[in-house]
Amino acid sequence: MSAGEAPSIFTRIILGEVPSHRVFENAHVFAFLDINPLALGHTLVVPKREVERLEALPEEEAAAIGAALGRIARAVLETVGAQDYNVLQNNGPTAGQVVRHVHFHIIPRRAGDGLGYRWNTKQADAGELAELAAKIAARLAEGA
Amino acid sequence: MSAGEAPSIFTRIILGEVPSHRVFENAHVFAFLDINPLALGHTLVVPKREVERLEALPEEEAAAIGAALGRIARAVLETVGAQDYNVLQNNGPTAGQVVRHVHFHIIPRRAGDGLGYRWNTKQADAGELAELAAKIAARLAEGA
Repeated sequence: MSAGEAPSIFTRIILGEVPSHRVFENAHVFAFLDINPLALGHTLVVPKREVERLEALPEEEAAAIGAALGRIARAVLETVGAQDYNVLQNNGPTAGQVVRHVHFHIIPRRAGDGLGYRWNTKQADAGELAELAAKIAARLAEGA
Repeated sequence: MSAGEAPSIFTRIILGEVPSHRVFENAHVFAFLDINPLALGHTLVVPKREVERLEALPEEEAAAIGAALGRIARAVLETVGAQDYNVLQNNGPTAGQVVRHVHFHIIPRRAGDGLGYRWNTKQADAGELAELAAKIAARLAEGA
């Protein structure tokens, strides 16, 4: 969080100021059930550090989240008896982010659950893709 | 992949047998532009190891993906001039997984792009959530 801003609801949960249904915790990661679930077992996995967006999270902490996601998902699925799941993480209001503290959703999926993404793919021009890839790769090679 | 199964299209891309618009590569991670993008800059981030689902990916490799996602997303956004993005990863056919090789989508978002999740939340019973959280936490404490 920035100086002077109030802590996020997730920070207050991590600090124990707001109760939650915790399922996992380690040095960098805290996970708890969403109280407005999309599905039984809907779980939020958050960094303990209050950072608004994923690209601002230090790599060690992003790595800790990456390592924890699958492990938590397996326990969720086994407990609720679901086979499949989505992992979803939103950055910014246009992407549907509401709480300004990085959070990954683990959403168990079942046939006929009515959930889904509006998935309007289009075929891209290969030349334009090649040009775009080269630009992105160059930024990454510069250590962006 | 299992013995006897053909390699995934992503493995063939990583091996260079199929061309791709690569943007990033390290010891564990390979990232390239989706040829059927949902948005300009739609990028796939995959482990080099061919594993079907996230919970089956060794933790070191899942951590490498976690560490790379934000860094790649930043370069994508800066290149295409978008502010916001979703990270989406699907496990199993009910969740919309098509290619049986773990992949994270980075999807740049713009106002009015028509993308979105069908997001039908419901309020859960606090007692049921508490019971469920205790069961999941117990599995994780057992090292599930």
